[in-house]
Amino acid sequence: MGEKTAALFRLISHGVYVIGVTDGERRNAFTAAWVMQASFSPLMLVFSINPEHYSYRLLQAGGVCAINVLADSQLDLAEHFGRSGIPDKMAMGDWRKGKTGAPVLGNALAWFDCRVSHYCQAGDHQLAVCTVVDAGPGKAGVPMLYGDTGNMDGSAGIYPDALRDNLKNKII
Amino acid sequence: MGEKTAALFRLISHGVYVIGVTDGERRNAFTAAWVMQASFSPLMLVFSINPEHYSYRLLQAGGVCAINVLADSQLDLAEHFGRSGIPDKMAMGDWRKGKTGAPVLGNALAWFDCRVSHYCQAGDHQLAVCTVVDAGPGKAGVPMLYGDTGNMDGSAGIYPDALRDNLKNKII
Repeated sequence: MGEKTAALFRLISHGVYVIGVTDGERRNAFTAAWVMQASFSPLMLVFSINPEHYSYRLLQAGGVCAINVLADSQLDLAEHFGRSGIPDKMAMGDWRKGKTGAPVLGNALAWFDCRVSHYCQAGDHQLAVCTVVDAGPGKAGVPMLYGDTGNMDGSAGIYPDALRDNLKNKII
Repeated sequence: MGEKTAALFRLISHGVYVIGVTDGERRNAFTAAWVMQASFSPLMLVFSINPEHYSYRLLQAGGVCAINVLADSQLDLAEHFGRSGIPDKMAMGDWRKGKTGAPVLGNALAWFDCRVSHYCQAGDHQLAVCTVVDAGPGKAGVPMLYGDTGNMDGSAGIYPDALRDNLKNKII
């Protein structure tokens, strides 16, 4: 269901990221694809997050995150952090604390330690607009592309069959 | 200058797009890389636009745009629509009018005809949050990746040398 629409949206290029969050005490991380640069001065990244997820609460409470870029060889990390409700989720990965306190993944391709500037609504998601406080390279490699992961996250079933259905949900 | 920082940010995967805008009378189009999906229901795309550009005025006046996905073979289109102040810019490309009235590029990989829902500030850019009204496939091919275009747009010189400089401009 919705596979044609999903295929169309897969032509919008996204990488695959594990985003680490903390409220100062508890830590968590989740897999995301909807990440992009938003500004040069200051350097800002923006990502789209489902506000129903546990990580969103930690993000809001702590106001910091680390956006870690996965390499094309790191599908295991993408899958692990794409699941919900795993006990001891942070046991996988080489984590350390960034300048902001956010969990930085040492074995990613690169990491961007960020402070959330503000949020902005976007349909069923929230855009987190983030100022990059610190960043650095990790291991060498090529970024994983979301379009190459197939239907890893089962999202193809979420897309509507017909785009005309999109207007029924319009928020404009 | 800033090449190390630019190389780091190039690990954030972006495609390359030509975004067509109109105020109902005048048309224009510009090359953009900072585009991503933002929502499933409704289906929304978001892109980051420099508010000093002419296209931003048309976008604001018309409230519509078509996000056209370039193939890896279409560097000529990316370069053409990446320039400012070209007379008769729309003479290049196979343009038609989408449902919203926005200029759709028939020879792109895919097109997304959108209505702007709202804007959101992000540093020196504005995020345009867009509801997808109509979309379709174009020619067959593989999406162009911004990271593969080298320094086509001269942006490497815009990145600061040291990330600590980023905080001097902080808007948080």
